[in-house]
Amino acid sequence: MKLYDSAGAPNPRRVKIFLAEKGIEVPVEDVSIPKGEHKAEAYLARNPLGQVPILELDDGTVIAESTAICRYFEELHPEPPLFGTDPLDRARVAMWDRHVEFNLFIPFAQVFRNTHDFFKGRIPQVAEWGELNKKAVAKGFDLLDRQLEGNEFISGATYTIADITAQCGLDFFGRILKMLPGDDHKSLARWYQAVSARPSAGA
Amino acid sequence: MKLYDSAGAPNPRRVKIFLAEKGIEVPVEDVSIPKGEHKAEAYLARNPLGQVPILELDDGTVIAESTAICRYFEELHPEPPLFGTDPLDRARVAMWDRHVEFNLFIPFAQVFRNTHDFFKGRIPQVAEWGELNKKAVAKGFDLLDRQLEGNEFISGATYTIADITAQCGLDFFGRILKMLPGDDHKSLARWYQAVSARPSAGA
Repeated sequence: MKLYDSAGAPNPRRVKIFLAEKGIEVPVEDVSIPKGEHKAEAYLARNPLGQVPILELDDGTVIAESTAICRYFEELHPEPPLFGTDPLDRARVAMWDRHVEFNLFIPFAQVFRNTHDFFKGRIPQVAEWGELNKKAVAKGFDLLDRQLEGNEFISGATYTIADITAQCGLDFFGRILKMLPGDDHKSLARWYQAVSARPSAGA
Repeated sequence: MKLYDSAGAPNPRRVKIFLAEKGIEVPVEDVSIPKGEHKAEAYLARNPLGQVPILELDDGTVIAESTAICRYFEELHPEPPLFGTDPLDRARVAMWDRHVEFNLFIPFAQVFRNTHDFFKGRIPQVAEWGELNKKAVAKGFDLLDRQLEGNEFISGATYTIADITAQCGLDFFGRILKMLPGDDHKSLARWYQAVSARPSAGA
């Protein structure tokens, strides 16, 4: 199998951190977004949506969507569990992963795509929509800060896919946009420091 | 347990169709969005995000997010499987459910929230963003139409959660916005007619 990655991009990094936490090694091929390789014919033949990452199996089957790829590896290599440990815990992790996506990762992406110079001329930008999403990100910080007041990790006592999603969002969008948790979000900042110190953060 | 529903809303309906396909009966309590009951203190105590649906267990535990609730029921009542049948099939279903969300359901919601009179004065609307998302919905129709040319259902040969997500998106947003598949998307229209004829569509 092969993972099609794009160095630095937040979605492929979710998979790479996931694999690092599991101790799984997968061959990686880089697809350069700045060079437009994700929109080139060779890549579109694999993923018509032109998004990274994808996982290509040896028979040519392609799995797109970082969360779907991670779920596939979770089944092949269940330890350590990163999607929860029993039906209720797995529901809780799925819930928190989506809370992180809809209240942090996606609003962050909207701010980036609609206000950052990188996208000028590449996509139609709606600055007003980007500004509104800054407020959504701020609310997302509040939500996660409250949750992390009484919990070591986002879905509870153990590190899961929900932490990876939040970590990749902050590492990419948060740093570029200079929107990182500070004194107003001490629990989130404490958590961010802790997950950033894990060996998998180097992935 | 109890499902907090909001009659007509697309996200709770995903859970209700899922339960109908499984033949599971769960007590339901209605939370009126037009009356603002989802933002009232009693409901916010259960879900601070003020969104429906939630599933409340007998010990008071709350699971939010329709997909997380469906995954919980999938584990408790595995038959018929609606999230796939083996690791690769489950990855494929997860991928297609997300493709439907990001290319149909979410763009539809953006059009609705940013252009429809219902939201005037309730949320800040960005008409330009709504218009852009009409184009995203049109691309989503193209994507699903191509996929359904050679497949009976969205992720392949069997009806899954990905079909439910698309069906609820079209039934709610598509009807309100008058954006339904026609002669340009014959395979999607054929599929839509078929899923609408299932007994679960009455849920």
